[in-house]
Amino acid sequence: MKLFEPLAIKNMVLPNRIMVPAMVTRMANEEGWVVPDVIDRYVRYAEGGAGLIVLEAIAVHQSKAGNLLRICDDRYIDGLRELTKRVHDTSDSKIVPQIIHFLKVSLSGWRQTVDMLSLADIDRIVDQFGDAVRRARQAGFDGAELHSAHAYTLSSFLSRRNGRTDEYGGDSLEGRLHMIGRVMENVRRKVGDDFPVGIRFNADEFILGGYTLEDSKLMALRFAQLGFDYISLSVGGKFEDAVHVPGHVFFPYTGYSGDRCMPNEWYPKAPHAYLAGAIKAFINAKGYDVPVAAAGKLDDPAVAEQVLVDGTMDFVAIARGLLADPSWPNKVKKGELDRIIRCDHCNVCKHLAGTHKVVNCFLWPKGSNQAPADDPTVGAPSWGLDKGGLTARFDNGTVELSWSKAPGAVRYEVCRADGDGRVHITDAVKTARALDHDTLAGMRYHYYVRAYAATGQGGPPSNTVVVEPRWPADAPPPRPAVAAAAR
Amino acid sequence: MKLFEPLAIKNMVLPNRIMVPAMVTRMANEEGWVVPDVIDRYVRYAEGGAGLIVLEAIAVHQSKAGNLLRICDDRYIDGLRELTKRVHDTSDSKIVPQIIHFLKVSLSGWRQTVDMLSLADIDRIVDQFGDAVRRARQAGFDGAELHSAHAYTLSSFLSRRNGRTDEYGGDSLEGRLHMIGRVMENVRRKVGDDFPVGIRFNADEFILGGYTLEDSKLMALRFAQLGFDYISLSVGGKFEDAVHVPGHVFFPYTGYSGDRCMPNEWYPKAPHAYLAGAIKAFINAKGYDVPVAAAGKLDDPAVAEQVLVDGTMDFVAIARGLLADPSWPNKVKKGELDRIIRCDHCNVCKHLAGTHKVVNCFLWPKGSNQAPADDPTVGAPSWGLDKGGLTARFDNGTVELSWSKAPGAVRYEVCRADGDGRVHITDAVKTARALDHDTLAGMRYHYYVRAYAATGQGGPPSNTVVVEPRWPADAPPPRPAVAAAAR
Repeated sequence: MKLFEPLAIKNMVLPNRIMVPAMVTRMANEEGWVVPDVIDRYVRYAEGGAGLIVLEAIAVHQSKAGNLLRICDDRYIDGLRELTKRVHDTSDSKIVPQIIHFLKVSLSGWRQTVDMLSLADIDRIVDQFGDAVRRARQAGFDGAELHSAHAYTLSSFLSRRNGRTDEYGGDSLEGRLHMIGRVMENVRRKVGDDFPVGIRFNADEFILGGYTLEDSKLMALRFAQLGFDYISLSVGGKFEDAVHVPGHVFFPYTGYSGDRCMPNEWYPKAPHAYLAGAIKAFINAKGYDVPVAAAGKLDDPAVAEQVLVDGTMDFVAIARGLLADPSWPNKVKKGELDRIIRCDHCNVCKHLAGTHKVVNCFLWPKGSNQAPADDPTVGAPSWGLDKGGLTARFDNGTVELSWSKAPGAVRYEVCRADGDGRVHITDAVKTARALDHDTLAGMRYHYYVRAYAATGQGGPPSNTVVVEPRWPADAPPPRPAVAAAAR
Repeated sequence: MKLFEPLAIKNMVLPNRIMVPAMVTRMANEEGWVVPDVIDRYVRYAEGGAGLIVLEAIAVHQSKAGNLLRICDDRYIDGLRELTKRVHDTSDSKIVPQIIHFLKVSLSGWRQTVDMLSLADIDRIVDQFGDAVRRARQAGFDGAELHSAHAYTLSSFLSRRNGRTDEYGGDSLEGRLHMIGRVMENVRRKVGDDFPVGIRFNADEFILGGYTLEDSKLMALRFAQLGFDYISLSVGGKFEDAVHVPGHVFFPYTGYSGDRCMPNEWYPKAPHAYLAGAIKAFINAKGYDVPVAAAGKLDDPAVAEQVLVDGTMDFVAIARGLLADPSWPNKVKKGELDRIIRCDHCNVCKHLAGTHKVVNCFLWPKGSNQAPADDPTVGAPSWGLDKGGLTARFDNGTVELSWSKAPGAVRYEVCRADGDGRVHITDAVKTARALDHDTLAGMRYHYYVRAYAATGQGGPPSNTVVVEPRWPADAPPPRPAVAAAAR
């Protein structure tokens, strides 16, 4: 599989093309130190075989932000070195920190914006990024990534909503790109040219008046020319459309752009691959072969492989899918697809991040703050004599499924075949009941359920039930399908 | 060209694959009668050679909405018959009305939502749609289109933000589809099976919690099965994210979803073609060959042709491009591309619609409420001895261009070649000055300007100026391009 071909990013050779993009854990302590739980989280990704692990956002400054990692002083280096050592001792996974600067946000909803920064503030931020990358190198990271996506400082400079009117201003593309150029100059001055430095940025802001692919293609070209060594694409996640509840944390993933950033179960698979494809084609045509990755519902192994084979991306970013199962890479490599704990995009993890609670996955065993160990010797759950006893009831547009519990099962996947030969997982649940709201009358659906052990092992399919939702009595009779003819 | 192949929609044979989708004119009088200006607007599209003209939204009821056309009573039939006769007397263009029901909106910002409708209200709306389509047939229209897109009643039933909890409710796909099934049953009962009835709906809502392509593919299948004869795709345009200024009209195209609906100059060309392609492929695979069109920056003739050749769509919807120049179809057919009045997506038309003013195009001669007549005998403007005297100044990330006025010119197009052989129109202006904010340092841009007569004739290119924006002094030196190698 293309997924398991190595990828050289300068001297950092990823053993495969699977990246865990940055996901906040909320496990750091209040001063931003690495603690054992943080190390365990990233060692688990290394055990699982990810090619590149991006450490969650780590701040270049001390500004208050809950339990966020810090790299704002040399005294943080030793703790981070312990983390990188543990990761490197575990596997050949590479690890880079996602280095962030963010502006102030208050519980009242007030937030600082880039037009409030003085030139001295800008100089300070430029220096802070350079020093942070230097510390990352000293701490044994294989490279670093600058966080220039979502609602944070560097991204806000790039934004068409950048309200500055000076040479860093939102009026022109060059103005919006000015800050990142200065930051990169300082970074290279402090770490040299041989240290891999990537950038994460938005391929589309998905906000009113925000930038689109027209700009992001040009930005990507600039980043390639500035000497960034990889480009990691995300989208949205902006404050401009975030929903603020006074007195609560103002979380930039609560508006529409937040929906896009972490697309839920009713988004298509790989909804942003088209942006990566266009950006990669554009910079390649200009003579730059900087590797491009993008995130967004790429956790179906076949889809992840396809975007690489198509040349849409050079490597893939899988966040929630690898949170659910850090062993996704190893399991896919071994063809053990029935052992994957599959993310169903329920976004409980997003909700935990947004309320500053320790981020875990709903599909892990209850109370667990780490993914279960990958233990292939644990047996898969099996059904009783009723083979699961799956039954279905159709009422008011909704299919209600229920089944018998399987001993040892912590999770069930509900599978649906739609008559075209493809099987979809419609839900992943912990109880022995599920609802399907998305059926269409006139179709014929086959459902079955599989039970999974905590470590991922999946048992055999249950009995199959067939549901044929009735065509609505008060609609015209369905027009028959014709053989699809060329028009 | 594929654009000029006929397309049969039942007995309605479009002479080509170019559709003017519904655009409000705000020219109807307060009672919603057709007036001469309205007729002139649509006759002009017929003169220009559009295959299918969709008459602007025409309401099935009397509810207050400014100068909106009405089809809510038999007494409107005669006026509409005059309109269809004038269009049919002009050319072989076909014309269908876009039939709308909308809910109440107040200047305070309050708005009625579908969950406030009683079952009796629903029955009434179902009847109103059937009666309206029957009147459309009596008035000599070639078919009808049901407006099930944007912020209006039928679309709000389809929406995932539909707040009803009964059998028309938002909880299930079938619930959301219930209303449109009943409407279509009533329509067919009143006009029979042989009258072409299309539907316009959103391929993606582009709002927080809204539906995406996952649902719209299934909806399109349902519409094909319900007997709709064409599918016209739009996106967004929702009240849920609209920006309301108390005391002003609440206009559903003011939020992000409104940006997507009428994408401005910094959106890519054909930004929603991918949605049409996926929907068409899906329904075709299910054995339905109902023609599919989509709107959104398809006014570049090469792009419009390409989406047909690719099989992405069966016909194309071009709104603002044909508002700017209703003769777009004839000019493209004759290869007279230099005579097209090209839309630059400035959205002045959208602003006029949103403030309930007569909708015209900024590129038309000042004070004009109709597109200028297509008169090929009018001479193209020519430059003086200075060949336009174009000069450029680069300052603070922005290129400022100025040139000499050309006698007889009402409009100038600023053209830019980016060194890759492609020429982009960066602006269309009425003055002899333009700014380009979107240049990238390190590139080499060639600019020239062309002057256009009111009727569209374009003169020769001006002198060319070359601009090479300087690489920022405070960024690292640009990494050189390499020959693009296969990775």
